[in-house]
Amino acid sequence: MLGARCLLRALRSCSSAPCPRPKPPARLSVRDALRVQSPSGERVTVQGWVRSVRSQKEVLFLHVNDGSSLESLQIVADSNLESRELDFGCSVEIQGQLVKSPYKRQNVELKAEKIEVVGTCDPKDFPLKYKDRPPLEYLRQFPHLRCRTNALGSILRVRSEATAAIHSFFKDNGFVHIHTPIITSNDCEGAGELFQVEPSSKIKVPEENFFDVPAFLTVSGQLHLEVMSGAFTQVFTFGPTFRAENSQSRRHLSEFYMVEAEISFVESLQDIMQVMEGLFKSVTAMVLASCPEDVALCHKFIAPGQKDRLEHMLKNNFLTISYTEAMEILKQASQNFTFTPEWGVDLYTEHEKYLVEHCGNIPVFVINYPLSLKPFYMRDNEDGPQHTVAAVDLLVPGVGELFGGSLREERYHFLEQRLARSGLTEAYQWYLDLRRFGSVPHGGFGMGFERYLQCILGIDNIKDVIPFPRFTHSCIL
Amino acid sequence: MLGARCLLRALRSCSSAPCPRPKPPARLSVRDALRVQSPSGERVTVQGWVRSVRSQKEVLFLHVNDGSSLESLQIVADSNLESRELDFGCSVEIQGQLVKSPYKRQNVELKAEKIEVVGTCDPKDFPLKYKDRPPLEYLRQFPHLRCRTNALGSILRVRSEATAAIHSFFKDNGFVHIHTPIITSNDCEGAGELFQVEPSSKIKVPEENFFDVPAFLTVSGQLHLEVMSGAFTQVFTFGPTFRAENSQSRRHLSEFYMVEAEISFVESLQDIMQVMEGLFKSVTAMVLASCPEDVALCHKFIAPGQKDRLEHMLKNNFLTISYTEAMEILKQASQNFTFTPEWGVDLYTEHEKYLVEHCGNIPVFVINYPLSLKPFYMRDNEDGPQHTVAAVDLLVPGVGELFGGSLREERYHFLEQRLARSGLTEAYQWYLDLRRFGSVPHGGFGMGFERYLQCILGIDNIKDVIPFPRFTHSCIL
Repeated sequence: MLGARCLLRALRSCSSAPCPRPKPPARLSVRDALRVQSPSGERVTVQGWVRSVRSQKEVLFLHVNDGSSLESLQIVADSNLESRELDFGCSVEIQGQLVKSPYKRQNVELKAEKIEVVGTCDPKDFPLKYKDRPPLEYLRQFPHLRCRTNALGSILRVRSEATAAIHSFFKDNGFVHIHTPIITSNDCEGAGELFQVEPSSKIKVPEENFFDVPAFLTVSGQLHLEVMSGAFTQVFTFGPTFRAENSQSRRHLSEFYMVEAEISFVESLQDIMQVMEGLFKSVTAMVLASCPEDVALCHKFIAPGQKDRLEHMLKNNFLTISYTEAMEILKQASQNFTFTPEWGVDLYTEHEKYLVEHCGNIPVFVINYPLSLKPFYMRDNEDGPQHTVAAVDLLVPGVGELFGGSLREERYHFLEQRLARSGLTEAYQWYLDLRRFGSVPHGGFGMGFERYLQCILGIDNIKDVIPFPRFTHSCIL
Repeated sequence: MLGARCLLRALRSCSSAPCPRPKPPARLSVRDALRVQSPSGERVTVQGWVRSVRSQKEVLFLHVNDGSSLESLQIVADSNLESRELDFGCSVEIQGQLVKSPYKRQNVELKAEKIEVVGTCDPKDFPLKYKDRPPLEYLRQFPHLRCRTNALGSILRVRSEATAAIHSFFKDNGFVHIHTPIITSNDCEGAGELFQVEPSSKIKVPEENFFDVPAFLTVSGQLHLEVMSGAFTQVFTFGPTFRAENSQSRRHLSEFYMVEAEISFVESLQDIMQVMEGLFKSVTAMVLASCPEDVALCHKFIAPGQKDRLEHMLKNNFLTISYTEAMEILKQASQNFTFTPEWGVDLYTEHEKYLVEHCGNIPVFVINYPLSLKPFYMRDNEDGPQHTVAAVDLLVPGVGELFGGSLREERYHFLEQRLARSGLTEAYQWYLDLRRFGSVPHGGFGMGFERYLQCILGIDNIKDVIPFPRFTHSCIL
């Protein structure tokens, strides 16, 4: 596979339009050029941005990157091909011959015959510097340029590969993909941290809602997925979700991506947990296979030690403890917590961290949470006196909660009572309908996609694993 | 590949948890059951919803569907397995033997040994009826149930397959996937039809914006993709976009999906058009290969004649005319238009329709539009006296505009002047930066995903190709 530029080239040559100039040598991406096994002088054109210029007496060395891989292609040229405009950051088109490189670091280099500077770059003004490895925090100031660094390039390529791997995992396992709505009239969990949506003031008609009802940005596609799992049995969605939380934490964004799945005819919470573990491990294996250099860069320069931590997670079976067991572990801890662990109270970040360490830094499922802590749709375990629901969270090293899921209450009368107690009966008639007409035991989960990327790459701040982060006081570009 | 339920089964059998009951026969999706080539009495469990019940003297016939395919599995049972609860719409679990079917319509049937009704369905209240083929308009009243019909089931499976095919097309051709932001401070095209985003009234602090600046729902990821094409050369996004237009048209939604791509180092508009045509044809070929029965259902019952129309589109090279030529064609038309065609005025739906018919119902690219009609970022053709930009729309039969794209103005001084004229210089400094630091000729396009589905399936109303349509006065669920 030679990539789209070869596709373009192939298509172009079929075009009926007359070719206005002599055919230039085939365009090759840097990735494809580097993959040529035994280069023997093939004439090619390579395009990209200059990552380094090194001028010796008679020879000019360039490194050119086009984002198709972390690695740049080394260009070797006669020094008479040098020009004043040839500088770090400029864009170039280079024609030449692919030859075997005498240097150890790569197999192939390009012996340039012609170097054209396509777009200049004044190094005085350009905030990225040659040979610099600027901290991620510095780069956040330049959301329109930071993708041109090795670090963000690698992270965003991993993000792209993980996205593809997630779609593959579900497709290969028979799930139907559903676009759950972004704008919704469901105030799903009765949470206060919603964004509301209205036509911008220019066209607002003050007396009425555009949609006749108040409309919000989705916090989860779960309820809509439940509609679809009643037809397709196994469904998933992978899209943006929103929280208007006033948080500057390294784990929260106002806009983030969730992978959510819903499965009908499950027998127990185990069924859901097995898909969660399968998703985590399969997608990670696919990412490691498809862009190992990009992952390695993160593990080497951003999060030393993460490679071993990730391997440890992948080679072990995930553990399972109940919420009640978790509370016992926390109560017996020698550590003093800011929030005293107590049955009936939610787990805080410090607790999650302790539990994961207690479990030997293996991801751990915590199951069966107090009913009083969880929303109306989670399935009642009918136990007692400590009354729980069939909920599950997956805690992972470094990140804490990565997945949340549950069995859903599929029994009409149980659900009806829970809704009535919350005063939601009227709003959720449609949801009750799903239990009136061919109800089935079902459950599902959601995985925070950015947290997943943080977890495998060891990136500390969530703002560095999304192209354009949105959070309180910040919506740049 | 036996699907996720077999995955579940396999994983379950590895689980260390003790198995509380004797192992039931392997669960199989309806799709996988129907694919068994030479059934010879394999004992299996099938789960799904009853689509028909036919009771004869001694034999009971059921059709069970689980959404894994359009086709249902025929169940044959001794009539003593019938129960009062076994009715259209109920959910069932059936154990039995897969055997060769004596009937022509399918190869396999399930000889039931045990039929369990999992969830009942009262046919009096259930708005879908056995043997009914209700019109799509009727079904729109039941967004939580309509996916259980053949029509919506097929449309949404096609949507899922098309989604996967789009990701494959771009991945196979070397594009990096980018999640462009949903909330943005860009008022991209200066259009009035934006949705504004604010924290819901519960937590709103009236004096200040949550993001410090007014924030809107995106109308296009283009500008953000341009940022990324400056690092990765070839990028795409596939996500929701929004218009607060007060429209009830069969072609417009408030929330819809766009596939957008941006490509650096292009030589001409032709490069972009070739990717557009390649995307349309490749994705359609993949969809036709992966779910032919679902496409056939639409072509047979919803849009008779569409099969031939689609084949006609696929087997011909798309045509190209200039905007100026298009205007000449329209002026010479014998037809009277509501809006008189005139150079410098946009094409209306009636014009688009005429042009496509004039072109023999082959998709047609219209290129080089008047500069005055188009936004600041489109590349100036520097022609005259009729001044145009390198813009392109693809018009297709039945739908009209399916794609829009352009070369982008990569020349700093041209762009600077255009921005200044629009009073946008300050807001778009970051966009100018992309032209200051290693600018390259580039371009891209967007395709309306719902219109694409309308086009290949022949579905007249856009509300029927999206799971949960949002439009003026309607945001149900």
